[in-house]
Amino acid sequence: MTDQNLPVAVVGLGPMGAALAAALLDRGHDVTVWNRSPGKAAPLVAKGARQADDIVDAVSASRLLVVCLADYDALYSALGPAREALRGRVVVNLNSGTPKEAREAAQWAEGHGIGYLDGAIMVPPPLVGHPGSLFLYSGPTEVFETHKETLADLGDPTHLGTDPGLAVLYNTALLSMMYSSLNGFLHAAALVGSAGVGAAEFTEIAVDWFLPSVIGGIIKAEAPTIDKGEYPGELASLEMNVTTLKHIIGTSDEQRVDAGIPAGNKELLDRAVAAGFGKSGYSSVIEILKRGAA
Amino acid sequence: MTDQNLPVAVVGLGPMGAALAAALLDRGHDVTVWNRSPGKAAPLVAKGARQADDIVDAVSASRLLVVCLADYDALYSALGPAREALRGRVVVNLNSGTPKEAREAAQWAEGHGIGYLDGAIMVPPPLVGHPGSLFLYSGPTEVFETHKETLADLGDPTHLGTDPGLAVLYNTALLSMMYSSLNGFLHAAALVGSAGVGAAEFTEIAVDWFLPSVIGGIIKAEAPTIDKGEYPGELASLEMNVTTLKHIIGTSDEQRVDAGIPAGNKELLDRAVAAGFGKSGYSSVIEILKRGAA
Ligand SMILES: NC(=O)c1ccc[n+]([C@@H]2O[C@H](COP(=O)([O-])OP(=O)(O)OC[C@H]3O[C@@H](n4cnc5c(N)ncnc54)[C@H](OP(=O)(O)O)[C@@H]3O)[C@@H](O)[C@H]2O)c1
Ligand SMILES: NC(=O)c1ccc[n+]([C@@H]2O[C@H](COP(=O)([O-])OP(=O)(O)OC[C@H]3O[C@@H](n4cnc5c(N)ncnc54)[C@H](OP(=O)(O)O)[C@@H]3O)[C@@H](O)[C@H]2O)c1
Repeated sequence: MTDQNLPVAVVGLGPMGAALAAALLDRGHDVTVWNRSPGKAAPLVAKGARQADDIVDAVSASRLLVVCLADYDALYSALGPAREALRGRVVVNLNSGTPKEAREAAQWAEGHGIGYLDGAIMVPPPLVGHPGSLFLYSGPTEVFETHKETLADLGDPTHLGTDPGLAVLYNTALLSMMYSSLNGFLHAAALVGSAGVGAAEFTEIAVDWFLPSVIGGIIKAEAPTIDKGEYPGELASLEMNVTTLKHIIGTSDEQRVDAGIPAGNKELLDRAVAAGFGKSGYSSVIEILKRGAA
Repeated sequence: MTDQNLPVAVVGLGPMGAALAAALLDRGHDVTVWNRSPGKAAPLVAKGARQADDIVDAVSASRLLVVCLADYDALYSALGPAREALRGRVVVNLNSGTPKEAREAAQWAEGHGIGYLDGAIMVPPPLVGHPGSLFLYSGPTEVFETHKETLADLGDPTHLGTDPGLAVLYNTALLSMMYSSLNGFLHAAALVGSAGVGAAEFTEIAVDWFLPSVIGGIIKAEAPTIDKGEYPGELASLEMNVTTLKHIIGTSDEQRVDAGIPAGNKELLDRAVAAGFGKSGYSSVIEILKRGAA
């Protein structure tokens, strides 16, 4: 038997929950929806969803609940009154939060005999249901495997491991990398812009080539040194990179572009040099980051 | 007539200059080499290069000089004594530096009747001569076009424009983007590492998918707004991103990972919000960077 056409309940009809419900309807599932403010269900009812009378009615409609609310507090408020009806069913919870909150939610679910997967949606609502849209999940492997086929109707499902905190942790980590990369690009675009080069023109080298080939290539090559905790620096030491960052700061000043971004990068490397990593390879900087809150 | 087998002189035999000379020899050029410390020529002579007696001898050997010294000061020291012999020839200068230094060198060359291209090598010495290795050039289009075929023997030649400062400026901009992205990756790797996920494993999502598809995709989509100087923020405002950065900082603290990197990213966004861009789109941050040295 395939999962296709299986009934699914969607709880939470914000922009993301509505997109999830619509994608499941598109794939032929029987979809029951519930939202605290009932008015948000109308467009989905027009597409064939059934609006539940209350949260217990929603929970009772299917073995699988996809929940997408603002945060974990909203999860407890919404599902709390239905916890007995949830026994023996599965909650796939897709809101953002911290690993600790995800682990607590998994414990809460376990305590009530509810199967639980935590997840993170890596795309905006318009890309839900499209190929190449990544959904990250963490929690019990058997729960993931049982519902994988249905989850694939939302986006490419990736199971990260049994620790329920992993999906939101990956999400947070990827977003942190994104902000650094975006700000780095903006500094670079400001630099070339100071000589009249357009940002879109610059992306032809910066994004079409440099980002995947050079930056991606360096990260792929360096990652194993992080896992070994050994950072050979003969070819390119941290000290050499501090010198390059000084040149970047100097050029920023020369071009009258704010040097705060390269200065921040240099400060981090300076801390690593001060901690004894001057002759080590670049990735030794992670040792500073692992040493806990500054 | 093709450029193949044309004589080329290579001045400077540090790790990079030696790689350039070797690539030209491999492609069948007559190569004359010169280095301040003469001992460094031996391995290239063994491969078929001719060692010049002095810099005037080197200059006289060909119409095209590829120069790769430590910096612009070294360029003037090395070529100064040969400036009369250089008249009517072309110098392609590949050292690192600032746009101002590059423009000054171009003026110096022009003043002595020397054709001049400034360039930047975007790969380490072992990748010189390999397909996909990018070399950036700036300066007169006709000089570039005349020597393009020979330059293609070093790596893919890209002409950025006639302003001689563009090659080193692009180089600096790309490196700045690289440091931000690498540090962002290291913070992300420290976060997932705090839950036992290996860095190499993390790259399967972070680099194979997220970096090109999501980060690259956002930059490509945003770049035109930078060129227009209009930053629509209805779908995702800077204020919303400040909230997300607060969550990243909170999760870093929870996982006992240094939060300096997301805190620096948040500070920059805070400055943009304070400057009135809170309801604007993400790329409005560049307006802060363009406002000059902090
Ligand atoms: N939108 C995106 O681009 C995106 C992308 C990835 C992940 N996410 C995550 O997905 C989750 C949902 O996001 P969203 O964009 O759909 O909208 P949202 O504004 O984050 O959440 C709105 C939903 O939460 C409900 N809610 C809030 N407090 C509640 C409570 N105490 N009890 C019951 N329901 C409550 C709202 O109900 P009412 O309608 O009654 O207020 C509504 O259904 C968030 O965690 C977000 O971080 C969003
Ligand atoms: N290596 C790389 O990965 C790489 C990548 C991209 C770009 N680059 C750039 O390429 C350039 C060369 O780099 P490199 O790695 O080959 O080594 P380098 O250490 O930067 O430069 C060494 C060369 O400069 C010469 N030199 C220094 N001062 C001089 C002076 N006053 N007069 C004459 N010659 C002088 C040295 O001669 P002696 O042998 O006599 O000391 C040697 O030939 C640099 O600007 C570097 O930034 C390097």
